Amino acid sequence: MLEQLIKTLQCLPGVGAKSAQRMAFFLLDKDRDGALQLSQALKDASQLVVNCERCRMFTEDTYCGFCTSNRRDDTKLCVVETPADVIAIEQSGAFSGNYFVLMGHLSPIDGIGPKELGLDLLEEQLKEREISEVIMATSVTVEGDATANIVASMAQRAGANATRIAYGIPVGGELEFIDGGTLSRALAGRRDMDAELPKKDMSHIQSTRHEK
Amino acid sequence: MLEQLIKTLQCLPGVGAKSAQRMAFFLLDKDRDGALQLSQALKDASQLVVNCERCRMFTEDTYCGFCTSNRRDDTKLCVVETPADVIAIEQSGAFSGNYFVLMGHLSPIDGIGPKELGLDLLEEQLKEREISEVIMATSVTVEGDATANIVASMAQRAGANATRIAYGIPVGGELEFIDGGTLSRALAGRRDMDAELPKKDMSHIQSTRHEK
Repeated sequence: MLEQLIKTLQCLPGVGAKSAQRMAFFLLDKDRDGALQLSQALKDASQLVVNCERCRMFTEDTYCGFCTSNRRDDTKLCVVETPADVIAIEQSGAFSGNYFVLMGHLSPIDGIGPKELGLDLLEEQLKEREISEVIMATSVTVEGDATANIVASMAQRAGANATRIAYGIPVGGELEFIDGGTLSRALAGRRDMDAELPKKDMSHIQSTRHEK
Repeated sequence: MLEQLIKTLQCLPGVGAKSAQRMAFFLLDKDRDGALQLSQALKDASQLVVNCERCRMFTEDTYCGFCTSNRRDDTKLCVVETPADVIAIEQSGAFSGNYFVLMGHLSPIDGIGPKELGLDLLEEQLKEREISEVIMATSVTVEGDATANIVASMAQRAGANATRIAYGIPVGGELEFIDGGTLSRALAGRRDMDAELPKKDMSHIQSTRHEK
């Protein structure tokens, strides 16, 4: 029974034999209530959590909280790879549109094609809903890039504007420690500084100068 | 439901909010069968695993496998702090006696006294069973040392020989990287080399010299 617990704990990502043994002993010695609650939560979630029929985010109902909310901007759709990406973007507070979760990226070698990513569902929605902008927020890998390109051409065929989030130097990052790939992306994605600075701030700087 | 799973996963040692989210998404996306098996294993173990009535090791029965085995040396008793220590010693294959698991060490500040460590149970056994040697294998901390001293005096009162496993340089360890505390323990615990070397090897070395 203890062996079974140590074995099954290893289905968690990043947990090997040694960590699993530590977890099992900890739970049995110090937190049996926690173990029972975790047992129930695992059972409930495994049996009841499904993918939203519109955006494929995890939910307990037919549609997720984002899709049923009437406070989201329905004209913007952000395409991400995982539910964790949705949560990261939500936490930034910088996006108020809807999402579409691919649950992975194109990877023919692992048998993940357009069907597995729900691209047929996405195409249907691009046709039926009035979406003006599709924002790609896939990862910066060969597969992520390929996925973004395919989704972008689908969006353009449906008459929507396809954009991709900027890849470059992270805020607070120091140039000398940034890898070459990121630097070349940052250089290629450079923008006119006039466009970057908000007009209001500019006038403020100019007026300060005049005062001097 | 997803929030509940992420929250309860954090009862596992070493798992914070971010890891818990990663685990939850991984299980829901890739391994729902594993999650259900883990749920069952957690429930079974929490409800059915108890402490052995003789040595306090985890078991499903009244007595554990060590205590019911007739292939163990009943005259030797090794006192350890945790079930993980028992498994580590068993894996070394260097001990064939019985164990007594304290499930912690003396720590008055956390409310862990002799009763919580089952010292009354141990004292009873020292009186009733014919134990010739009690081996302390507690950790090398102030609390571990204090615990070892108390158990040792209990053993001596009951007429048993009290020993402690050696603390020193680990096998393969290089002197220059060993901390001062370990080095001073290793020096204090130095032994006569004649006693360390097996007699047979010595004669072999001498005979080789003679041949030269």
